[in-house]
Amino acid sequence: MAEPSTNPAPPPAEAPAAAPPAEGGEDGSISKKAAKKAEAKAKKEAEKARRAAERAAAAAAASGSQAQTEDLAKDNYGQETHETKLSPDAVEVNLKTLGEEHVGKKVELRAWIQNARMQGAKMAFVELREEGNWSIQGVVAASPEGTPVSRPMVKWVGAINPESFVVVEGTVQKPLEPVKSCRVSNYELHITKCFIHAAAPAVLGMTLAAANRPIANFSDEDVPVEQGVEKLSIASAGEPAGIPAASMLTHLDNIVMHKRSVVQQAIADIRAEMKELYRSYLRSHGFKEFEPPCLIAAASEGGANVFRLPYFEKDAYLAQSPQFYKQIEIAGGRKRVFSIGPVFRAENSNTPRHMTEFTGLDMEMEIKKDYREVLDMLEGVLLHIFRNIKQRCADEIALVRSVYPSEEFLLPELGKTVRLTFAEGQKLLREEGPEEFRNVSDDEDMSTPQEKALGALIRKKYNTDFYVLDKFPESARPFYAKEDPTNRKVTNAYDLFMRGQEICSGGQRINDPAELEARIRTKGIDPASPGIKEYVDIFRQAGVPAHGGGGIGLDRVVAWYLNLPSVHLAAFYPRTPKRLLP
Amino acid sequence: MAEPSTNPAPPPAEAPAAAPPAEGGEDGSISKKAAKKAEAKAKKEAEKARRAAERAAAAAAASGSQAQTEDLAKDNYGQETHETKLSPDAVEVNLKTLGEEHVGKKVELRAWIQNARMQGAKMAFVELREEGNWSIQGVVAASPEGTPVSRPMVKWVGAINPESFVVVEGTVQKPLEPVKSCRVSNYELHITKCFIHAAAPAVLGMTLAAANRPIANFSDEDVPVEQGVEKLSIASAGEPAGIPAASMLTHLDNIVMHKRSVVQQAIADIRAEMKELYRSYLRSHGFKEFEPPCLIAAASEGGANVFRLPYFEKDAYLAQSPQFYKQIEIAGGRKRVFSIGPVFRAENSNTPRHMTEFTGLDMEMEIKKDYREVLDMLEGVLLHIFRNIKQRCADEIALVRSVYPSEEFLLPELGKTVRLTFAEGQKLLREEGPEEFRNVSDDEDMSTPQEKALGALIRKKYNTDFYVLDKFPESARPFYAKEDPTNRKVTNAYDLFMRGQEICSGGQRINDPAELEARIRTKGIDPASPGIKEYVDIFRQAGVPAHGGGGIGLDRVVAWYLNLPSVHLAAFYPRTPKRLLP
Repeated sequence: MAEPSTNPAPPPAEAPAAAPPAEGGEDGSISKKAAKKAEAKAKKEAEKARRAAERAAAAAAASGSQAQTEDLAKDNYGQETHETKLSPDAVEVNLKTLGEEHVGKKVELRAWIQNARMQGAKMAFVELREEGNWSIQGVVAASPEGTPVSRPMVKWVGAINPESFVVVEGTVQKPLEPVKSCRVSNYELHITKCFIHAAAPAVLGMTLAAANRPIANFSDEDVPVEQGVEKLSIASAGEPAGIPAASMLTHLDNIVMHKRSVVQQAIADIRAEMKELYRSYLRSHGFKEFEPPCLIAAASEGGANVFRLPYFEKDAYLAQSPQFYKQIEIAGGRKRVFSIGPVFRAENSNTPRHMTEFTGLDMEMEIKKDYREVLDMLEGVLLHIFRNIKQRCADEIALVRSVYPSEEFLLPELGKTVRLTFAEGQKLLREEGPEEFRNVSDDEDMSTPQEKALGALIRKKYNTDFYVLDKFPESARPFYAKEDPTNRKVTNAYDLFMRGQEICSGGQRINDPAELEARIRTKGIDPASPGIKEYVDIFRQAGVPAHGGGGIGLDRVVAWYLNLPSVHLAAFYPRTPKRLLP
Repeated sequence: MAEPSTNPAPPPAEAPAAAPPAEGGEDGSISKKAAKKAEAKAKKEAEKARRAAERAAAAAAASGSQAQTEDLAKDNYGQETHETKLSPDAVEVNLKTLGEEHVGKKVELRAWIQNARMQGAKMAFVELREEGNWSIQGVVAASPEGTPVSRPMVKWVGAINPESFVVVEGTVQKPLEPVKSCRVSNYELHITKCFIHAAAPAVLGMTLAAANRPIANFSDEDVPVEQGVEKLSIASAGEPAGIPAASMLTHLDNIVMHKRSVVQQAIADIRAEMKELYRSYLRSHGFKEFEPPCLIAAASEGGANVFRLPYFEKDAYLAQSPQFYKQIEIAGGRKRVFSIGPVFRAENSNTPRHMTEFTGLDMEMEIKKDYREVLDMLEGVLLHIFRNIKQRCADEIALVRSVYPSEEFLLPELGKTVRLTFAEGQKLLREEGPEEFRNVSDDEDMSTPQEKALGALIRKKYNTDFYVLDKFPESARPFYAKEDPTNRKVTNAYDLFMRGQEICSGGQRINDPAELEARIRTKGIDPASPGIKEYVDIFRQAGVPAHGGGGIGLDRVVAWYLNLPSVHLAAFYPRTPKRLLP
């Protein structure tokens, strides 16, 4: 038992290796036909697995009835009861921190069975996995004396359903050769006790291998064809080692396995770190965190696309942004504030770019002399995120890229940023963009294809995927946007872009109640209407300094940084018009 | 101009000094009559102020018409336009960091006028305030030459409405005596330029002095009399220096002044730091942050008190807690997770303890051997918050106590915590509590008065305001609570208390789908009902390790730590059944 096992060349790891080249269309997109084929194959695969599991169960039962002699190892395995039967001297370990000091030691490990298989009648191999794709090979070999490991125990361990959670005891050994299939390749675990803590079903709704593949299609969300193809450009339907890819629908229906996939855990880690980088940067620049409400009394920002709900004897609405509340904080004497929280849009848009609930990273600050102070801060915090995430999450980013290949996210040189005015952007598009944009106007907002085309032009010209468009036309901005005092056709408002897609909108706000009311009228809104009146009154209560801010969509930052085929992959529980589950 | 002014004994500071002794009932509570009186006085005060402002404006206009000679200082004051007229060599300063190195220097300050008054015809005094109650005395004295400061300029500055936002230029000087009325007492500012950046109205809806007083009553919220009195025990209606206190309703109607009050800014600072302490502690203990959804498909946790809204062709609900989603994260392969976000209760409770939207600090973790591992973590994070907030926010806590006096929050000795079982708590209440609790049962949940009485007993006996009640009876806990395997009448579930009030509820969850379904039936719920079915299915998708967690109400932690008369004071924008504004 104590000798290192000969490496039995275990089955290929389920974790994704380097990504296969994209198949399908020229841009790597897949056809609907290919997606259907993949789904059909996945179903066939699942049925095959179910039958194999049935056979294994029958065999196990049969072998059990043959074993008439007493099982000397019977206390060393089985379904766990409430008492632990592990040795008191076993040391608890985590795979991430397993080291030389553990070799030869008796250890205890709690992990998922990623894979279990027999090697002859006396030996079984299991792959044990912990959070973050840490895995180790476990060896169960029958002892000649029948204890601590008996033949029935070996068979029992070799037949454990994948994704069951087990507690094992064993000795850490060095294998003859590194175990390539496991992230912990220099050690293996010689198991002497094994208890199932929580059993997985014989047939999983989605295997880990399938969960680790890029998502085959998002078509259950009724993606308009061009947009779908455009966004799916990276999803590959290739099926290496016969592992079919699943649809987004299958992933959501099998949320547990979806979340166990290494790619989703990596995305979640990157998202959490980006959020933390946002928070720590702003805190270190004197920003105070606050919590705006979700429940509000009026659909103040326009009124369209707002969720309404009965609220005792009245109606309430779900906030589309915390902007008015950020401004109240500034009016209430704060110099700089930020908030992180959910925002809601009742928009019936079924595209990979939209969700009905997402996480807003908002900030607002006093302006001393120029509204570009806010722009400096927004660029500063985003560059801080982009520069640090590369270091902090290098492994996770590489892992995501191995499943969803993408080009490096290009940043401007240190100390330099790319800011164009809206008019300059339109000029670039007219002069150097595709044929169909030869006549774009400086007075109208851009469409998504125009934005993308401009993003490509800017990447070529300035070598960056991150840039700002400033001075948006007055007509493209809401009533609270401050006009440029030197040119009232444009505003002191801007958008920030990643890979040609907007991730942040902001600007200077009007802080004078008379000016605000006049602009509200110009926009054709009644200053006495609900929500609007209360908003204007804020600036009448006391003198409010000049201020501005911006709102960043966290889901989009994560998705576009990694160039994921859908923003839904960046969310923990994507909410779409058709889907509220899980 | 450059000599230090003689200290003109400015009017009493508006910032609260040491708190006056509580007036009213024996426990310091105020009667409805007293509250009404205070309100009436506040109105009278406001009217008086309005008339004074009118007189001042008339006087200013008259003096303007008298000055026929050219105003040589005319470019040094006025309403600010878009261009700045300050000297290019003036150094920007913040009051917090003002020091000896600034003495004699020309500086630039952006601040609120807290107070402005004339001293004869040639001199005016202003108090300038920045965020965090930092204030300095400004002196404007007419120069014999009429420049840089003229008599009209002095009059103009002396008549600026309080709470206007100004930009001033001046020289930092040392006053002859410390300026007691300002937080910056060792320096004063000799103003040579002053521009109004944003003017406040002549009459404020609520003065800063009133905003700084403890809130006189919460009666617009229909507080039941006993509860109101109980919770208002610290609010003092005393009116030192003739400054009346305002009601919560007046505060919310004047949200800008409410937020400018030093006590609200101090509470906000304490809240933000508590949140940060929660986050950093859990992160350092291996917890990963995630975002649960607010919009959910079914009213899964019981169904009562849930907000429902139309969601495209279906209905959606607002999450009452992120618990199911925390559990999905654990099922999905995370060892430890936490979330910070809004939760919603459609409960028509109009008390100072309830809100319809509040901030939940949630966590969930894998249990290795004993559910008390979770309890250790919950106690750990809360003690971390309590111990560190005392250092980090010592000034802010003292400031809040000067307005809302409270006894020190008692903590258990280092390394010790107080954990009683529910049965032990009930026994203590029966044996040593008030007469009416002689017959409390071990099988029923406690009422709020019982909880409070027990809190008082525990404080006396164990010298702590923070403690745990463990092993709640089965009947008092929801279907997902894990029963104690050794005694099925109780659960592995607990509440954490501050000053006799629950701030956290948690426990071990059932992780076996069969056991879960059985308990759901026992509770009289159909396991196939919407939300429940999807929940049980999570544990069928794959093996889920034992786990537990808890949810902490941030608003309550802030409010009870500071012993505020209402949890509404701890929230940024309190949401109650009657109030969604601002």
